[in-house]
Amino acid sequence: MNPKDYIKLYKTNLLDKVVPFWLNHSADTENGGYFTCLDRNGDVYDTDKFMWLQCRQVWTFSMLYLRVEQNSAWLEFAKQGADFLIKNGRDENNDWYFSLTKEGKPLTQAYNIFSDCFASMAFAQLSKATGDEIYSKIAVETFEHILARQDNPKGRFSKAFPGTRDLQGFALPMILCNLVLEIEHLLDPALVKKTLDSGVETIMEKFYKPELGVILENVDGDGNFFDSYEGRLVNPGHGLESMWFVMDIAERRNDQRLIQKCTEITLSLLEYGWDKENGGIFYFLDVKSRPPLQLEWDQKLWWVHIEAMIAVLKGYLLTGDERCWNWFKKLHKYTWENFVDDEYGEWYGYLNRKGEVLLPLKGGKWKGCFHVPRGLYQLWKTMEKVESKNLIGLAQK
Amino acid sequence: MNPKDYIKLYKTNLLDKVVPFWLNHSADTENGGYFTCLDRNGDVYDTDKFMWLQCRQVWTFSMLYLRVEQNSAWLEFAKQGADFLIKNGRDENNDWYFSLTKEGKPLTQAYNIFSDCFASMAFAQLSKATGDEIYSKIAVETFEHILARQDNPKGRFSKAFPGTRDLQGFALPMILCNLVLEIEHLLDPALVKKTLDSGVETIMEKFYKPELGVILENVDGDGNFFDSYEGRLVNPGHGLESMWFVMDIAERRNDQRLIQKCTEITLSLLEYGWDKENGGIFYFLDVKSRPPLQLEWDQKLWWVHIEAMIAVLKGYLLTGDERCWNWFKKLHKYTWENFVDDEYGEWYGYLNRKGEVLLPLKGGKWKGCFHVPRGLYQLWKTMEKVESKNLIGLAQK
Repeated sequence: MNPKDYIKLYKTNLLDKVVPFWLNHSADTENGGYFTCLDRNGDVYDTDKFMWLQCRQVWTFSMLYLRVEQNSAWLEFAKQGADFLIKNGRDENNDWYFSLTKEGKPLTQAYNIFSDCFASMAFAQLSKATGDEIYSKIAVETFEHILARQDNPKGRFSKAFPGTRDLQGFALPMILCNLVLEIEHLLDPALVKKTLDSGVETIMEKFYKPELGVILENVDGDGNFFDSYEGRLVNPGHGLESMWFVMDIAERRNDQRLIQKCTEITLSLLEYGWDKENGGIFYFLDVKSRPPLQLEWDQKLWWVHIEAMIAVLKGYLLTGDERCWNWFKKLHKYTWENFVDDEYGEWYGYLNRKGEVLLPLKGGKWKGCFHVPRGLYQLWKTMEKVESKNLIGLAQK
Repeated sequence: MNPKDYIKLYKTNLLDKVVPFWLNHSADTENGGYFTCLDRNGDVYDTDKFMWLQCRQVWTFSMLYLRVEQNSAWLEFAKQGADFLIKNGRDENNDWYFSLTKEGKPLTQAYNIFSDCFASMAFAQLSKATGDEIYSKIAVETFEHILARQDNPKGRFSKAFPGTRDLQGFALPMILCNLVLEIEHLLDPALVKKTLDSGVETIMEKFYKPELGVILENVDGDGNFFDSYEGRLVNPGHGLESMWFVMDIAERRNDQRLIQKCTEITLSLLEYGWDKENGGIFYFLDVKSRPPLQLEWDQKLWWVHIEAMIAVLKGYLLTGDERCWNWFKKLHKYTWENFVDDEYGEWYGYLNRKGEVLLPLKGGKWKGCFHVPRGLYQLWKTMEKVESKNLIGLAQK
């Protein structure tokens, strides 16, 4: 396959298989918002509404409207989700609940700051698509709330005894690096710069450990490795996703050194996380090769693979490093053979170690309309640049 | 194999392989308490101390001292764990922390009422073994605390929004049925009777659903099935474990009708939970056959299988139902072939769907010195009764 073939494949999978799946099956026409618990062919098997996925779906359809085609059905679909969220999504402190009933009644308290991150991202993208101030106001207020809560994100729900082992998690600084670019048009440029500087430094200097060749999920208060279950945990897909976030920042800044470093880390994470026996990237590993706590450690997840493809393709585009192209082809092959469902659209989410479908669902509590459409869009557009940059000589190898 | 063979196998596995494994490898001689994160051959791979497992190990060695042999090394081993717990285990409200560092500093807050259940069970058993009032006082105080907290066990850590969907969980009433017998010698008989009556009724009338043939993990406030992820959840091993708890109660009460009912439910749960393709009992299932939330749903866990063996063997002892004996043989075969490690002692804990070892550990955050030794003891003693009751004619088939 050459870049043109990949472009066609990603574009048609996105527009003919993935977007229609969500448009046709996920609308809650009675209450507003989306059903995300959809089985293989799109039937609803559970009606609870999880805030991460409600927000992410608003974001996806706003993004498609903005960047792919000004299709008013897509914008309406995003807006009906946003309206449901505005009406039902926040508690009395304006923190976002974790889940709601289909009617919009709060089910799970606002313990999870990532609900807020995805809300801010959704409303920022929708404000860009519509120019509507109702949306931009919510995006900015939520963003400010996240910054205020970031040092103690779980608040009263935190189970850690204070002072004994105050580890820092990778997820929040990583997501902030992406979120701040999403909401940039609504923020003071100085705040954008400060957030990016601090995010990039945190990822590259604290969580990336050159001596281990991986990005850790948790480090101690001084940014050092800590030998406990949490401290030893590696989530290769998470690290890979963060690498393309940082590459996007490095590209804006024209920082070739940072691009090079991200590319090397991407290759190192792939080498580390790849299952040499069965193919695919492990979900969790213990950096000291001890038994991980997560029983699902050896499963192969859709988002891990599509985020890895984006990272390594961006690395290829920005460095021309042939190792990236080789990894890209390997990842594409595994992903296309195992996750894609041409019959019903959308992708499977969860495979066992051998690559067999573990759960036939297309959406659930944690899988919604996000990684696949975002990833297909990113791959399509990145591959267009690969093609136009005439990296084709290499790419046809 | 006839009952004598099984008796010998369970007794020698317990006394020659399992007990020595924990005695030789788990003592923290510096700080007191136990290391439970032990790899295949007993090496410590993590030093955090999880209260469930600290308490359960105190219980196990007290129980062995009381019921198997007055071996002073066993009693000392239990007491050193108890001393560590007394010194470090409770917060200022006398609730039990969830985990500690190896030195005994609190790591995870007292959010989990099962820590208290296992603490009460441990100190009650140790008080029986020693007659020491320090221990019985802690057992009773902790028990009273559990009863006081039982309607809101998670307290401030609960993430459920109050009033929207107040489900009741199966675990606490089930454990109380067992705990109250463990601590009976320290309680007012009226409280014992009341707790048992209410526990048995809750299990048999609320959580067991004859029309579904299973025991549910969660029901709504009125005890009805609720169609959500939590409401649809079945944990066959959990139900099976509860059935031998209730059979023990029914046997005391000489309630043959209840014994019969427990036996039928045991058989029904085995039929339901058995993996017809690969053997073994699934960890989690969705009662409507929808995708379960738990990614580890198809794994085979040690405790599920040994608890199932106990339930079905007790059912056989108490009813003579040949279906029980047939299931027992099938379970024994699967368990012995897949979980037992004759080389290093203790059992593997986690197998994949096909029965291959998923994690080579012998102990971790959730697996300690408890289900295997308790189960081997129960199987050994129950099989002795099977033998002496002359159910042998059947049993030799």
